[in-house]
Amino acid sequence: MTKVNQSRDSGTTQRSLTKQRLVETARELFYQNGYEATGIKQILAKAGVNSGSLYYFFPTKEDLLLAVLERYKELLWPMVLDPVFDRTGDPIEQVFGVLEGYRKMLLATYCRQGCPIGNLALEMSEKSDAVRKAVAENFEGWRVAIRQCLMDAGDRLPADVDRDRLATLILTTMEGGVMQARAHRNLEPYEASVAMLRDYVDRLLLHKSGGVSECAG
Amino acid sequence: MTKVNQSRDSGTTQRSLTKQRLVETARELFYQNGYEATGIKQILAKAGVNSGSLYYFFPTKEDLLLAVLERYKELLWPMVLDPVFDRTGDPIEQVFGVLEGYRKMLLATYCRQGCPIGNLALEMSEKSDAVRKAVAENFEGWRVAIRQCLMDAGDRLPADVDRDRLATLILTTMEGGVMQARAHRNLEPYEASVAMLRDYVDRLLLHKSGGVSECAG
Repeated sequence: MTKVNQSRDSGTTQRSLTKQRLVETARELFYQNGYEATGIKQILAKAGVNSGSLYYFFPTKEDLLLAVLERYKELLWPMVLDPVFDRTGDPIEQVFGVLEGYRKMLLATYCRQGCPIGNLALEMSEKSDAVRKAVAENFEGWRVAIRQCLMDAGDRLPADVDRDRLATLILTTMEGGVMQARAHRNLEPYEASVAMLRDYVDRLLLHKSGGVSECAG
Repeated sequence: MTKVNQSRDSGTTQRSLTKQRLVETARELFYQNGYEATGIKQILAKAGVNSGSLYYFFPTKEDLLLAVLERYKELLWPMVLDPVFDRTGDPIEQVFGVLEGYRKMLLATYCRQGCPIGNLALEMSEKSDAVRKAVAENFEGWRVAIRQCLMDAGDRLPADVDRDRLATLILTTMEGGVMQARAHRNLEPYEASVAMLRDYVDRLLLHKSGGVSECAG
């Protein structure tokens, strides 16, 4: 490798690191303060990057937000699912393990922070169609993973229970529960929502394993 | 009544109308655009009120938001509950009638607008404790009305089903479903969430009316 190439590679690596740092910093600040309330200056100061570099990678603040939402899609498995799925192979426990992860996040932040995607969904859905779609893609990635768990549960769930719609209710439970926990600054609404969802799923499992079906037979 | 008193009364009425107009206009604009994205100038122009009058009633923008949230509390019965409760006396149908009202709101706005309180919950929970509490009070008013329906359902629901927590899951379903419908600009996530909640409640009613309880007996 020539000296010129080495230097070019090192420049590329440097640029890539700067870009990563911008996305990570923006991700953190948007999560903590919301998108509108976060200033470009704040991002630059925290990332230690000058405005020229920022505009080189992200001509607008919205471009930066879209990169953040792309990053969240990449993080779904390593951050949200793998830590749970590595612990248990039972698909129903995987679903409730993922929901437990959000409870821990609420607990660790005194119910100040829940799901970053939910925040952006309500803040940005009407303001940018590109952002709205990227939010929807994040929801869809999560929902599809949960639906796979429900499909993996096979005949433990009654055949006539719609796995796709049940996966939607599970995402709904997480987002609606997080929202109320944050408003009340109290875990109870989240825990209550998940407990009732668990009761529903338990009744579905019981139904299948004999409770009702044998009775009805 | 003297002329002085008449004039004083008329001034009081005028002031009261101006205050109402400010709150109504702010309510509408915060709902459409979010709180941060709505400017004071925009509110004044739309309400046709000068800034002196605004600051007389509401020294800060947050004071105006708190008045809006107070107004939403007043509107719970006339706007959300009465139209449904006047139509049916069946407490379970009342619950699903309220949820149907939000579906109609999503439908009428092409899934652009859902629950105004949910928006403010996520936008403002970390920014002002007074606003967070007012949002929580709105949630609580809604939840308590729905819990009363569940209590009115009496022994149609199994005795061991926690009415308080089930009411929380119902609010959770509405908020989480609205959020996803807005992000996808599609009714399906809302309809799916409510349909699965209905399946859960139907199973609870069935359980009570004979399905499982007679079998287990």
